[in-house]
This record gives sequence, C-alpha cells and structure tokens, in this order.
Amino acid sequence: MKAPELGIKIGVFEHGKRNSIADLGIRVGHVTLIEGDDVRTGVTVLLPPVENPYKERLFASTFVMNGFSKPIGFVQVDELGYIETPIALTNTLSVYTVASAMVKHMIELNPDLRSVSPVVMECNDSYLNNIRKMAVREEHYFEAVKNASLDFEEGAVGAGTGMSAFEFKGGIGSASRVVEIGGEEYTIASLVLANFGRREDLTIAGVPVGLELKDYPGRGPSAKGSISMVVATDAPLTARQLKRLAKRAIVGLARTGGYAYHGSGDVVLAFSTAQTVPFDKEPHPISFLPDNALSKLFRATAEATEEAVINALLQAKTVEGNGHVRYALPVEKLLEIMARYGRLEESTR
Amino acid sequence: MKAPELGIKIGVFEHGKRNSIADLGIRVGHVTLIEGDDVRTGVTVLLPPVENPYKERLFASTFVMNGFSKPIGFVQVDELGYIETPIALTNTLSVYTVASAMVKHMIELNPDLRSVSPVVMECNDSYLNNIRKMAVREEHYFEAVKNASLDFEEGAVGAGTGMSAFEFKGGIGSASRVVEIGGEEYTIASLVLANFGRREDLTIAGVPVGLELKDYPGRGPSAKGSISMVVATDAPLTARQLKRLAKRAIVGLARTGGYAYHGSGDVVLAFSTAQTVPFDKEPHPISFLPDNALSKLFRATAEATEEAVINALLQAKTVEGNGHVRYALPVEKLLEIMARYGRLEESTR
Amino acid sequence: MKAPELGIKIGVFEHGKRNSIADLGIRVGHVTLIEGDDVRTGVTVLLPPVENPYKERLFASTFVMNGFSKPIGFVQVDELGYIETPIALTNTLSVYTVASAMVKHMIELNPDLRSVSPVVMECNDSYLNNIRKMAVREEHYFEAVKNASLDFEEGAVGAGTGMSAFEFKGGIGSASRVVEIGGEEYTIASLVLANFGRREDLTIAGVPVGLELKDYPGRGPSAKGSISMVVATDAPLTARQLKRLAKRAIVGLARTGGYAYHGSGDVVLAFSTAQTVPFDKEPHPISFLPDNALSKLFRATAEATEEAVINALLQAKTVEGNGHVRYALPVEKLLEIMARYGRLEESTR
Amino acid sequence: MKAPELGIKIGVFEHGKRNSIADLGIRVGHVTLIEGDDVRTGVTVLLPPVENPYKERLFASTFVMNGFSKPIGFVQVDELGYIETPIALTNTLSVYTVASAMVKHMIELNPDLRSVSPVVMECNDSYLNNIRKMAVREEHYFEAVKNASLDFEEGAVGAGTGMSAFEFKGGIGSASRVVEIGGEEYTIASLVLANFGRREDLTIAGVPVGLELKDYPGRGPSAKGSISMVVATDAPLTARQLKRLAKRAIVGLARTGGYAYHGSGDVVLAFSTAQTVPFDKEPHPISFLPDNALSKLFRATAEATEEAVINALLQAKTVEGNGHVRYALPVEKLLEIMARYGRLEESTR
Repeated sequence: MKAPELGIKIGVFEHGKRNSIADLGIRVGHVTLIEGDDVRTGVTVLLPPVENPYKERLFASTFVMNGFSKPIGFVQVDELGYIETPIALTNTLSVYTVASAMVKHMIELNPDLRSVSPVVMECNDSYLNNIRKMAVREEHYFEAVKNASLDFEEGAVGAGTGMSAFEFKGGIGSASRVVEIGGEEYTIASLVLANFGRREDLTIAGVPVGLELKDYPGRGPSAKGSISMVVATDAPLTARQLKRLAKRAIVGLARTGGYAYHGSGDVVLAFSTAQTVPFDKEPHPISFLPDNALSKLFRATAEATEEAVINALLQAKTVEGNGHVRYALPVEKLLEIMARYGRLEESTR
Repeated sequence: MKAPELGIKIGVFEHGKRNSIADLGIRVGHVTLIEGDDVRTGVTVLLPPVENPYKERLFASTFVMNGFSKPIGFVQVDELGYIETPIALTNTLSVYTVASAMVKHMIELNPDLRSVSPVVMECNDSYLNNIRKMAVREEHYFEAVKNASLDFEEGAVGAGTGMSAFEFKGGIGSASRVVEIGGEEYTIASLVLANFGRREDLTIAGVPVGLELKDYPGRGPSAKGSISMVVATDAPLTARQLKRLAKRAIVGLARTGGYAYHGSGDVVLAFSTAQTVPFDKEPHPISFLPDNALSKLFRATAEATEEAVINALLQAKTVEGNGHVRYALPVEKLLEIMARYGRLEESTR
Repeated sequence: MKAPELGIKIGVFEHGKRNSIADLGIRVGHVTLIEGDDVRTGVTVLLPPVENPYKERLFASTFVMNGFSKPIGFVQVDELGYIETPIALTNTLSVYTVASAMVKHMIELNPDLRSVSPVVMECNDSYLNNIRKMAVREEHYFEAVKNASLDFEEGAVGAGTGMSAFEFKGGIGSASRVVEIGGEEYTIASLVLANFGRREDLTIAGVPVGLELKDYPGRGPSAKGSISMVVATDAPLTARQLKRLAKRAIVGLARTGGYAYHGSGDVVLAFSTAQTVPFDKEPHPISFLPDNALSKLFRATAEATEEAVINALLQAKTVEGNGHVRYALPVEKLLEIMARYGRLEESTR
Repeated sequence: MKAPELGIKIGVFEHGKRNSIADLGIRVGHVTLIEGDDVRTGVTVLLPPVENPYKERLFASTFVMNGFSKPIGFVQVDELGYIETPIALTNTLSVYTVASAMVKHMIELNPDLRSVSPVVMECNDSYLNNIRKMAVREEHYFEAVKNASLDFEEGAVGAGTGMSAFEFKGGIGSASRVVEIGGEEYTIASLVLANFGRREDLTIAGVPVGLELKDYPGRGPSAKGSISMVVATDAPLTARQLKRLAKRAIVGLARTGGYAYHGSGDVVLAFSTAQTVPFDKEPHPISFLPDNALSKLFRATAEATEEAVINALLQAKTVEGNGHVRYALPVEKLLEIMARYGRLEESTR
C-alpha cells in the first residue's frame, strides 16, 4: 500500500486517480531478473502517451543534483529541450545495453531514423546484485516495453529489483498530485528509482523514522547509493520551465532524508505531455503557462517526489541476493512510530 | 536564543563554539536602518579572515537554485573559483549601491587595483520597507564594515531588518557544525538572509509548525520572498568541490519548508578559508580533500543551513513598517508544539 | 565607414538597412566622458523597441565564454528567460552606478515596481582611463537614455571611449544580417563593446592583419581586455534558443582573433524583439521557430558579431588619456593589406 | 601529410615531436569497418598514459558547444572532475555498444570494480555508412585497444572511416603545440573526429578555401554533421581550469569554418596527464598552474584544434559507400589556392 492508504500524508495537495505517473497516461513496464544466488536486477521502461515518441517529441529538461551518475541522453535533452524516446531505468553497468536496445526499438518504428538520443537512467544495485555479470540483455528492454501498462507494480520490481534505500529494500515508487491553476487542473507525477540513504537519515512526513529504526536488522554499506527521478506533467511548459520543475524534485528528496552524499548520483528528468515539439521551418504557436503560475507546480513536484520515495520503501518486499539481504521497511512498526509522533492520519484505504 | 539552547535539535553533528559563521573567523557587521514609518532595511557585511581579501583570495563557488535573484559577482566567482572581496547582503534594489561602496573599499586598500569583482546578495524587504526609497547609501556599507565582529546579532538586524520568513519576522541567522574526517576536525557554517516561505510550509526539525500556527496573526503576502545563503568551511576544497557543497545548502533549506517558489530567489555562495589562491605563473601545490571525504561536509552543510534559517526566525523580533507588521515567531507556543510532536530535547542553555 | 563600405566583406548574408542593431528598432544612446588628462570613459544604453521594458518583457538569454567579467543581471535572465530593462554598457568599476540609475529609471516609469533586474555589462578601460576615479555618475545613464537614437555613433564613444582592441583603439561596433527562413525574412544584429586582443591576433576576413601591423606604433599591455556582446533578433525564439544563438557570437569573435584569454571576460546577452512575455496564470500561445530552422540564424549571429568587432575598430578614432595613447586602426594601410591578400571587394560606398 | 609539412601554418606556436596527441604519451588505436557496399564505420580508442585508468584517474572536464550530440559520461566527468577510463569515438548509434565494451574492459582490469563511467563520443556517418545496421560490435572496441600505438593513422580510419567534413572526406585529425610558461615547457594537443561543415564554409589559415572549391564535385547534404574533440595537456590543471581550456577548442573550430549549426553536435573533453586524482580521506597537495598563467594554453588549444581539423581533411582519402562518395580534399588545388592568397610558407617536409 502507498502512503495515503496507510494514513501517512505527505504535503497538502490531493493525488490523482492512480497516485502514480500513470495519471499522465504514461505506461510503465518491468522486467525483473532473479537468477541463481546473485542476479537481482532488471529493467523498467516508461512509455510516454504518444504513438511514436521519435515523431511526437515532448518538451523536457534535466537537473543534476549530484552527477556521480551515468544518465544517457541528458546532453541532448538540455540542448534541444525534448525527449524523442521512451525512458528506461536499470543498473549502472547496464545502461548502455538498454540504450542500444532502445535505439533498435526506435529504428524499428522509424524507417527514416538515422540519429536518435535514448534516455536511460540508473542506480547501482551491486549490494544485492552481482552487477559485474551484466545480466541485463537487450531483449529484456523489449520485454519491458511489452509489459508496459497503466497498472504497474512498484517496489522491488524491474530496475528496482536489487536497489536499497536507507538500508531497507528500495526500488520503484511513484506518486502524483493534482493542482488548480487559473481555473485549470494539472497533474504532476514523479516516478523514482530509489537506492540511496543511510538508515538514520530516513524521514517520513518529518518524523525521524530512521533514528527510531536504527537498530532494526539488515544494516549494511550505503555509500554507492543514488536516485534517478522522472517528473511528468500535463501542464504546458517550455524546456526552461521544466528545468525549474526538475530542481524542485530535490526539495522532495531532501525531506525523505536525502543528502546527495558524494557517492549518490541524484538526477532528474522532467517532461510535459501537453504538446509535441514541431519539426519544420515556420513559426509555431506553443502554449505555455507563465512562470508566475508555477509555484503550485513546484510544490506539487516536491510532494510527489517525496511520496514516491516513501512509496518505493512501503511497497518493496525483502530481497536476498549476492550474499546480502535487504529487509522491507517494517510497516507495522512504522505506523506505530508515526502515531507516536502525532503524524498518523486516517488511512484512505 | 538559538535552536539548541531551546532544546530543538537539528541534525546529528555538534555545532562549533559560537554556533555561527564566526567559528571560521569570519566577522559580521550590520547597519540597521529604521527611519520614519517606512524605512526598515539595512546592510550586513561578512569579512573573511584575511587582511586584504583582494590579495588573499579564497576558493569559492556558487549555486543558483532559483535565479529570480540579483546576486552581484557570481559570474566571475564561477569562472575563476575565488572571491576577492568581503561579502555583503542588503535589499534587492540596493545591491548596486553596496557593490559600489565595496569597490571603493577595495580601491582604498589596494593602490594598484584596476578591476575587482564585489559579491553582494539580496532579498526583497518591500513588505516592511519602502524599498522604492532606496534608503541604503554607500556610507552604510563602510559603517557595517566598521561594526564587524565575531560577536554579532542575528534576526531583524542589518540586511535582515525588513525581511519576512514564513509570514513571521525573518532576517539573519547562522549556525555551524564540526565534523571529523580522516582524523582531522573541520568546521562548516552557514549564514542566511531568510525572507521566504508561506506560513503553512514552516517545518522545524520535521514538525509541521506552520500548519499548527496557520491561524496565528500577522499573515500576509509571501510571494516576493527569497533566501541568500553563505556557506563557509575551513576544509581545504577546490572551487568544484565548493559548488558541490553549495548545492547541499538546498537540502537544509528544503527541510525548513522551502520550496523555491517561483518568486523566491534562492542562491548560495560557498567558500573555504583554508588557503589562498596563488597569483603567479608557476605550478603551486594546493591542498584538497578527495571527493570521497566529502559526505560528512555535505551533511553538515545541510544541517547548518537548516538551523541557520530556524535561528533567524527564533531571534527576529516583531517589526512594524510600511503599513505592515511581521510578528516574531512565538517561541513559547513553538516549544509547546515541539513537545507535543515529541521533538523537544533538553535545552543546552 | 563600416566594413562593407570599404570593400571588406564578412560572411555571406546581406546586412540590414542600417547595418546595426538599430535595424531591430533598438535605439542606442551614448554619454562620452572626457575630462582632464585621465578620464576617458562613458555609458552606452540600448533601448529595446517597447514603451516600457518592465511591462513588455522580451525573451532573452546569456552565454558566458569567459566569466572574468562583471555583468549585472545574468542570473535572473537565465532563470526567467527575459529582460525587463534597457541594457547598458560602461567601464568595469561603474556597472553598479549605472545599474542603480537603471533601477531609478524603472521606478520612475512603474509606480508599482518593487523588484527589478537591471542588465549592465562592462569592459575595463583602465589603460586610457583613470578607472579608479569612478567618473561615471547616475545622471550619465539618464543622459544616455535621452540621447538614444536609431542613428548612433560607433567607435570611441559612450562606453567605448576608453576601450582598446588589438592594441588599437576599440569601442562600440555594430552590424546586422538579414536571413530568409521558411519564406520569412528575419534580421539579426550584434552590438559589441570591444576591448580585447593582442596586436598579432587581429584577423579581418581571414587576413592576418595583426601580424602585418605588428610593428605599427602604439602597442601596449592588452591583458585586462574583455568584450561584451549584445545580439538581437526579430525571429521568434524561446530563451533556450536564444542561448544557442548567444553561443554563436563566439564563432564570430574567434574569427577576429579573439582567444578569450584568461583576463578577457567574454560575455553575450541575446534577446528577441518578436513578442513579449505574458504575466498571468493562464496558458498563452507563444510563437517560435522550430530548432531545425535555426542554422541560418546561427551563421548570421557569427557574421554580425565578427563584423561588429571590425566595425568598432574601423570607426574608433585615436584617443590619448591616462598617460597612454591608442591609435586608430590605419585604414589606408589596412586596405592595402586586404588587397594584397586578395580580400578586397568593391566597396559599397 | 599534415599542414606544416605542406607549408600551411596554423597559429604561432611550435608543434610537438609527433604533432599529435601522442606527444602526451596517449596511444591511439583504430578499427576500420568496411563491409560490402554500405558499411563504412569504425572505432577509435585513446589510451591515457597510465597503467590502469580506473585507478589512475586524470583530472578532466567537458564543454558542450552544441548538445545535439550523444556523448557518454559527461555528467560524471563534470561532477567529479576526472576520467576513469580510456576515451572512445565511434558512430552515433554505436556509442552504447562501445561503452558496454569499455565497461567490460575495466571489469577485466579491476576485480573490485562495481561502478565505472565510460567516456565515448560520436559523430553521425550515415551519409557513407548504413548506420542503421549498427555494424560496430563489442569486440571491435577490444581490437582497437589492442591496436593502440603512439604511431597512428589519421583521416578516414577508425571512427573517422565514414565521416565527412565540409562535404569532403573527413575523419580523425590531430595536432599539438608546445608552450613555455614560467620557465617550463608544456604540451597541448587536440584529436578530433571531424564530420561537420558546409563546403562554402571551409577556411584554412584564414583563406576562404571552401568558396574557391564550391564547384568541386562531391557535394551533398551536410546537415547531420558534428565534431567531437579531445584536448589533452601535461600542464597541471584542475577540472575547473580544464573546462576553460575545453571552451577554447571552439575558437579553433570556428576558424576552420565551423558554425555549430543546429544539427552539428559540437562537444569537447579536456584532460591533464600531469597527475592522478587521490582516493582517500586526507588532504592531498595537488599541483596546479594559477589561472593567470593560462592564456598561452588557451591559445595553444585553439591552434591545435584548428590544425587538427585541417589535418583530418588533409589525410582522409576518398571513400565511397552507402550509395554516396566523399572525395578527399584536393591537396594540389588547395596549395595553389593558399599560394594565391599569400598563405603558403615553406613546407617543413
């Protein structure tokens, strides 16, 4: 269950229908690789709500809070202000395999394609996964694409299979928010691959949960952490505005106990589903919200990202692999702590 | 009193002797301008611990979280990686007057000076101050320099005189932290000019204080907020590393309830007092900490900045001006709330 | 006379009617300060073609090639993507005085103004000018505004009064280009404050003029050089696209012999006069050219900037001051050299 | 033959012994793929002069002039300021395959490796090469490593096999310069993968060669061009300083006729071979040149990069493939043109 169903309220805005990035029509597909004692990894793909992302390019931007990270495609996104492919997540050493597969995917869809800039992000799952085996193969990307759905699992699945967060089991989490600006409703959502944080740092809705759980078993090195974040909205924004949005994901991250430690690559990709980027050589009108309408979207980005991290923790089940174990966050204990600190509301179950 | 003296604990590291930027030997001077009904503004100057900052340049960098701000000198600091002047804070429309005064100050000290890059940062105090009067004059900068001391006031003084934070009285706040890395102790400190935030957003040590105080009187528009942050350390760091540090100030800011709203210019200057930048044309050895030693400094930056914001609120007294009033944060009520949420420790008084 | 009138052809595109930034309707005003033996400086103001720049904000961006420079306002331009004031140029130590005056100018025009971000750029004229005297006063800015006209002088006037380029007399230069894209004509223009370069480096239309003139008298230290560049266009572009444009000014600069030496702060501001930035909270359509229409604009930016530098040299008269002299580029000798290298065309006189 | 051997002098500094990046001890290896009618591509690898680049990390930085490019690894290089792998060049769609191979290479060398950030850059050879076939395989990277030598070919080899420049045959080119600073000699070198430019734009030592050769056969679309540049030096520089160096490569590029057209991804990686980056948690002295010693290095970077582009053109032989042909630059005609413009010196043959 996600935070609101447990009575944990993050922020002030309402979430969307699914409380996930699927509220923007984005389909998410996973391939989970569990092989032998030591392979615990996978691939997650996000499909924007268009037929052919190479032809229906969406305005996008990035923000790098801590560049100890290997994101593919950020240079071009920042120059041209759009994405032209799906977005994939996987482990650190497999981003190149997944990017190659994404190139082939786009080649298949587009007989005229001679250049394309895939977007793939990563975290390092080498605590639970024998990352040196490079177990992800190109076919896994295609399988993840085939699996994509508006109803998707979160937690220890897909790229999240082997990830850790706050020395608990981490992985994929998502959340959304709905805001009203100038009489219009806009949705904003975040999907994260959470793999960062020291136990003591975990903070949920302001409560120092990590300090309370610092003696709970399963601790282990957390230095090679990271978080990759995807923010999406249906508000019509330019690339410059989306960079502003991307930065606010860090506000949400900080509230969960993220410090962007040296070894934690913390990066954000933000895009808008509102309109596509024109191709030809004549002036085109694009719609966009003036910047002074953005504060609610900024806050919603922070809230959705904060909750997405917590949702990853709440939904990830215990995983053993590679000689280590990461336990699921103990939810009953958590609820007891939240109540003790006066932060448990009626659940929305 | 600052947070620890009240029993409010922010983070895990110990603070330095003065729990302020003075722990780095940096002297701070204020000029507070209160004239008639409508002038409530001032100047604050930070003097680095060197004889002549133009000759003893210190490694430095900046980070711009939200560039709706008018900092002076950031372009050169980022190119050359050092500061060569004191650092001043004032109101938005007076940065240029203060920068001119700083140029004259440096001219006086350096008979050979023909170029210099002052560093001045600002927030907009136009709620309590008739900012259009441009009441700050060059002599106020010089007076602030003269007033500089390791013992300096915080709260509604100097540049903080007319500032608001979370619809309470804001202003100048500072805090420090001491960390041990590789057997050495390093100090890191933050000084902020806090002028941002909506009432409901105020968060202290994770407690939603702003929601609890949302009906406390004195609310008013908060859109034209901002925060300027100065981070200093005696750890030997390069400019690239100081940019990494500067980014972590945002982590602390986020934990107080900062969202970097559209209208809130949120900027950071970070510098190291450990060594000066050489001038001539031969290779020089400079000492620096490897990046994998930086995580503690990152965390300490976040903690010091978070507490600096709270210290500004705790020390700022109620100010009336320009037809408005900003009340001091009601400390007794605050302590009652903190206790109720289980977050009040024994005070260090 | 400008380059084309002398038979020197820079690039392939045609220039506009005035071959200057006035082709965009931008008026330029100078105040030239020549006082006693040692004051040789001034102010130049560019007035965008709008009634009130604070209300009719224009899309804009910046590029910093070498940040050994003190531009005012770049942080906000880059965040928000617009300018909201005129643009001024002056000497290094006077940018703050001019910025203060610009704030007062905007306050006068706008009774509701409580925040504004002036844009002022600079070069260091301390070879010919006693820069330590800080001779520019606020009234000079207002006078320059009053002088603004579509017909304006170039060379050793206004901010260009004391500037040097390639150890000749430098200063203000401008040029424009007209390109056809998708059936529409667009104008692009550059205005520079040229104060950089070693004698040997001077290159005009590819000819190593500086090497040929290396023994021409008047040589002297050139280290504290710089160039500030303003690029304007009537093509409808977003801020992101204008940053791309701004970068191409460097291509033109490089062709004149610019190396962006350590001491030469080389910065660009680019803006579009095509449309204003909306204020409210509803989505607005803005027109913009797709990026694949931009190559001609990129080339035109390079050409206009290259010629603007040369035009500054061609029009600047010999100036003595501060115990030094900078000679005008000897035009007759130049034409002889150009002819010898096969690069003199029929003049357009 | 390279430019100086033909009597074409670019700039004022002397070149190093080999006039290539090998002057820094960097070995270069190629694999050239010519298969059937339509495969004309390859891989080029640069091996820094260390035993194990993952353990002997070198200070590095990047500059993106035009981010319509897919470089791998730039985010991490910019954050951490070093490279930890060799550097490879290949075609646009094959960067991911080559990066995967490089990961495996580093895994083989380092039994403890769990994270690594490969650096791979690209241009688009789809005019002469059927890029959709993705003919480059991982083994080609390993073969290129095996081939690496201080004596390496330039022109239409390795990654350069299918590249075009100025509608002539382009590819790999390199050049070096030696400068004296503060009594020490430093070498700076550039290696480029040149695949950009319209015929008319080609400029050699300032001479408008492209205009003179505009009717020479073999013209064809040039829009999908690009240039990837690698700059190396033995001067001791920090990452911040290397970014300054990287920017000056653009000065050299501009002088060859580069405009960084929309479709031309123009990116630079710069690194220093002078010292390695320490790992542990204690302060380390690193040697570096003060910034005011850098102007000669800036100029040398521009010169070496300008000549590297020209050397690529001079050494690339005519290639047919994929239904198209790119002719070698006609050297005899070129020399005749250079002589006519007074720019041919005695050759250094």
